Amino acid sequence: MGPVRRDAEATKALILKAARHLLARHAHADITLKAVAERAGVSAPLILKYFGNKDALFARVMSFDSDADALLDAPLSDLGRHMVRHVLASQRERGADPLLRIAFAPLHGDHGDILRANFRAQVTGRLAARLTGPDAGLRAELAVSALVGLGVMYGIARGPHLRDTDVEAIVNRYGPLVQAQLTTEP
Amino acid sequence: MGPVRRDAEATKALILKAARHLLARHAHADITLKAVAERAGVSAPLILKYFGNKDALFARVMSFDSDADALLDAPLSDLGRHMVRHVLASQRERGADPLLRIAFAPLHGDHGDILRANFRAQVTGRLAARLTGPDAGLRAELAVSALVGLGVMYGIARGPHLRDTDVEAIVNRYGPLVQAQLTTEP
Repeated sequence: MGPVRRDAEATKALILKAARHLLARHAHADITLKAVAERAGVSAPLILKYFGNKDALFARVMSFDSDADALLDAPLSDLGRHMVRHVLASQRERGADPLLRIAFAPLHGDHGDILRANFRAQVTGRLAARLTGPDAGLRAELAVSALVGLGVMYGIARGPHLRDTDVEAIVNRYGPLVQAQLTTEP
Repeated sequence: MGPVRRDAEATKALILKAARHLLARHAHADITLKAVAERAGVSAPLILKYFGNKDALFARVMSFDSDADALLDAPLSDLGRHMVRHVLASQRERGADPLLRIAFAPLHGDHGDILRANFRAQVTGRLAARLTGPDAGLRAELAVSALVGLGVMYGIARGPHLRDTDVEAIVNRYGPLVQAQLTTEP
């Protein structure tokens, strides 16, 4: 990756960060492309070049798709452990867990409703579609509950024991609990 | 409870709500008693009468003590199920779960740090003190992770399957996972 490509990625990240910041504080409809551009320190046409239009930019900010790709990237038989490891690795390596955006979803207004709908379609619904047996929808929501809670405890509550323990030791302890929602013992 | 006592309780609740609102938006040190009084629609002397002083009021707002009393009010052998039931009942009956305040703790500044310290001392630490065997601190944090995640899924993500399922069915499914962190099978 050359310097030009790297600059483009860094600029896109700045634009997404600015959009996220504004979305956390203002109604979707009240945010102008100009406001995002000013906050990101770029021009509005550059945002159009990278993201197409304002709605496409905001859809990107509110999507869980790319996180879900990584979260769900394991065979069902090992998915519980994989997902626990993924949440912990996100926190340790990136200092954040994109899944946790759902914990900050505003309870009222468009922004929260879009985040909730995306979360259901892209995370819990997608997981449920991989499960067999009864109550797949409920079991997917409970498995994801355990993961979101782990992210809150690590990243927000900053549980000292969780932060001081080796990732694989936590995977061994917590993974089977998540897995119990996904598959039943033979 | 007579009407006078009920009014006092309602007024106290208004004052606590106003303090919570301001604390979510301003630094602790920048909030005056007068601002809390104005927002609650009461006089500053009334706040002093009910809560003593500003620090005592804020300590009350940021305490998990009374929630932890209810959350942990069961014998250890049944505590996993009890805690799951408590989180769901809080959400269904009150539309909120006081434990969830930790999910909104600001990452920077006094307010978040006090909430985090209280959460550790009053919730996870208190639970850990009841556990026997190795890694009690970690096991308590993992059990509480699962509960906080359940609250986020119910109250914020508004998982439709979770909200449509009978409380006891969820207790039967999720309770054993929490319990697995608390006691080991004989």
